[in-house]
Amino acid sequence: MNMLVDGEWRVDVDEYTDEDGEFDRQETSFRDRIEDDPDAEFPAEAGRYHLYVSYACPWAHRALVTRSLLGLDEAVAVSVVDPYREDDGWEFSPEKDGCTEDRVNGFDYLRETYVAADPEFTGRVTVPVLWDTERETVVNNESKEVMRMFDTQLASVADRDVTLYPEGYRDEVDEVIADIYDPINNGVYRAGFAGTQQAYDRAITELFDALDRYDDLLADRRYLCGDRLTEADVAMFTTLVRFDEVYHTHFMCNRQFVREYDNLWPYLRDLYQTPGFGETVHMDHIKEHYYTTHPDVSPKRIVPLGPDPDFEASHDRDELPGGPPTELDAVVR
Amino acid sequence: MNMLVDGEWRVDVDEYTDEDGEFDRQETSFRDRIEDDPDAEFPAEAGRYHLYVSYACPWAHRALVTRSLLGLDEAVAVSVVDPYREDDGWEFSPEKDGCTEDRVNGFDYLRETYVAADPEFTGRVTVPVLWDTERETVVNNESKEVMRMFDTQLASVADRDVTLYPEGYRDEVDEVIADIYDPINNGVYRAGFAGTQQAYDRAITELFDALDRYDDLLADRRYLCGDRLTEADVAMFTTLVRFDEVYHTHFMCNRQFVREYDNLWPYLRDLYQTPGFGETVHMDHIKEHYYTTHPDVSPKRIVPLGPDPDFEASHDRDELPGGPPTELDAVVR
Repeated sequence: MNMLVDGEWRVDVDEYTDEDGEFDRQETSFRDRIEDDPDAEFPAEAGRYHLYVSYACPWAHRALVTRSLLGLDEAVAVSVVDPYREDDGWEFSPEKDGCTEDRVNGFDYLRETYVAADPEFTGRVTVPVLWDTERETVVNNESKEVMRMFDTQLASVADRDVTLYPEGYRDEVDEVIADIYDPINNGVYRAGFAGTQQAYDRAITELFDALDRYDDLLADRRYLCGDRLTEADVAMFTTLVRFDEVYHTHFMCNRQFVREYDNLWPYLRDLYQTPGFGETVHMDHIKEHYYTTHPDVSPKRIVPLGPDPDFEASHDRDELPGGPPTELDAVVR
Repeated sequence: MNMLVDGEWRVDVDEYTDEDGEFDRQETSFRDRIEDDPDAEFPAEAGRYHLYVSYACPWAHRALVTRSLLGLDEAVAVSVVDPYREDDGWEFSPEKDGCTEDRVNGFDYLRETYVAADPEFTGRVTVPVLWDTERETVVNNESKEVMRMFDTQLASVADRDVTLYPEGYRDEVDEVIADIYDPINNGVYRAGFAGTQQAYDRAITELFDALDRYDDLLADRRYLCGDRLTEADVAMFTTLVRFDEVYHTHFMCNRQFVREYDNLWPYLRDLYQTPGFGETVHMDHIKEHYYTTHPDVSPKRIVPLGPDPDFEASHDRDELPGGPPTELDAVVR
C-alpha cells in the first residue's frame, strides 16, 4: 500500500488488514468545517472551496451527488483524478477522458494537497478532498462530513433551496448513514480485501443481511427515511450503483446482484433517474479503477465485460409517497 | 506454473500465455487407446483400467459422467485427488472429504503416474489420467478420447447397453465437440487466464457469441445433436455446470449467468437431473479448486459465497422430442 509517512511518499507500507484478516480502513485525517458564518475560520463563500474527486470512488461520489442535488455546481468547482491509481497514488491525467488537471494548485499528484496542508502528514491519500483556496489547506476529507457541510453550511451560496437533511428526519438520517456504513458501504471492501476466509464469510454475511433488511424496508417507503430523499439515500446510492458491475465480481459479493432484489433494484433506478444522480455516474472510471488498481485482488488488471445493468429502465417507485426535492421543494433562486 | 521437465518436478515454469496474452493450453501427452479386441495392446477388460480424476476439473468430469451414463462404474474404478492444487501439483489427500488415496499405485502425487509411464516426461500434469494396471502405464489423458474409448471400446464390460455416440449422429457429435471447445470449454480459461485486455475481450466475445448461438439452437431441440443425449452434451455440461459458480466471477465471464439464458439454463437442469450427471457434481471441490489454486487470478484464495443456482428446479425440456438413454434404450444386463 502507498501512503505518506511524515510527509514522504512510501510505496511499501502494508497495513490493509488486521491480525484477523479484517480490512482495516484508516480514519480520515482532516476534519475542519465550513460554517455559515462570515467570521468563521472557513466561512461559506461561493468559489472559495474546491472539491477533488475520483469518479471511481464511492466516498467522493457522495460529495459529487450532494453538490449536484443542492445546486452547488457553480459555487464549488471540481478536479477529477485519473481512475487508474498506481504506485504514485491518485494522479492528475488531464489528457484522459473525463479527467481534469488540478484546477486550483496545478499539482501532478493529489498527495501534494495533503503535504501542502500538513508537511508532516502521515496516512493514506484519499478522495474526496475539500480544499480551501483562500487558506490553501485541506478543510475536510471525510465524505459524510463534506455531505453534511454542503447541506447545512453552504445554503447561502447554493443555486437551489433544497435540503437533504430535513428537520424531522435528522435522527433517522444519522442512524441510517451509521447503520449502513459497516455492513454495506465499507462491507463490500471488507469482503473484497478480506485476508482470511473467516473475515470474508463474516463480511459477506453481514453485507447481505443488511441488504435483505433494507430491501424489505424499501417495499413500502420510497426512500430510506420515508417520503423524503436524504443524505442517507446518497450514501446508499454510491455503493449500490457500483455493486453489480464491480463489487459482485471484483470483491466476490456474489450471493446475488442488486438487480435481483425486488425493491433495492427499482429504488436504485429511481435514484439514478433523479436529476443529480445519474449524471455523476462514470462507469468507465469506476470499472477501470477497481479492476486495474487492486493487484492484490485482480492481479491481471483486466476490466470485465459485464453485466451492464439498465439503470434507465422504468420503475414504479413514484407510486409510493414522496418524491425528489426537485419536485417537492426546489426553488431556483 | 508447475510441470515436469525431463521427469523432474519444477515449480517455476511460466508459459501460461503466448506473446499476445492468449492462454496457451498445452497438448495432452498420452494418446494410446483401449480397443475392443483381446489381442490389442490395451484390450477391453473389466477392472484393468483405472481413472484418476479431480472432481474440480471439467475435463476429468467428462470422463466421470460418461463412465456413469455408460454403466462403467464397476469396470473402471476411480481415484480422486485433492481439489487444492499447490506447488506440488495434484496430490492425494485421502483424509479430505470426497478425496481418496491412490487406489492402485499408492502414490502421493499424481505426477508420479506420469513419471512411471515416462521417466523423461516433460509437460503439465493434468486430469483425467486413464491408467492401465496391467502394463503399469498411462493409456490416455485426453478427455475427449477417454470419453470416446469408454463409449465405443468398453461396451463389452459395461453394465448398460447405452451409447453416447449413436450411428446417424456421429458427424454432428464430432462437429459440436470441436465447435464448442475453443469458444466455450477452453474459452472460459482463455478469458480467465488472459494476460492482456485484448486477449480477454476476444475470448469473452467468442464465448458469449457461442453461448448465444447454442441457446438459440436449444430452443427446439432437447439435446445439442437433436433428440439423443450424446457425448456433445457431456462436453457442454461440465463447462455449464461450473459457469455461474466459478467462471462468471473467478474468470470474469460476467456478461451474464447461464441461469439467465432462456434455453441453456433449463437444458443444464435437464442434464443435471438425468441420472449420471448430478451425482458426479461436487461443487465444494469445484469452488475450492478454482478460487484457491489460481493465485495469479484470485490471490487471496477466498471461496465466495454465491450464487448457488438451483439445479434441481423443474424444467419443461421433456416436452421436446427425445429423452435420456435410461428411458430410450437402456438395458441393464
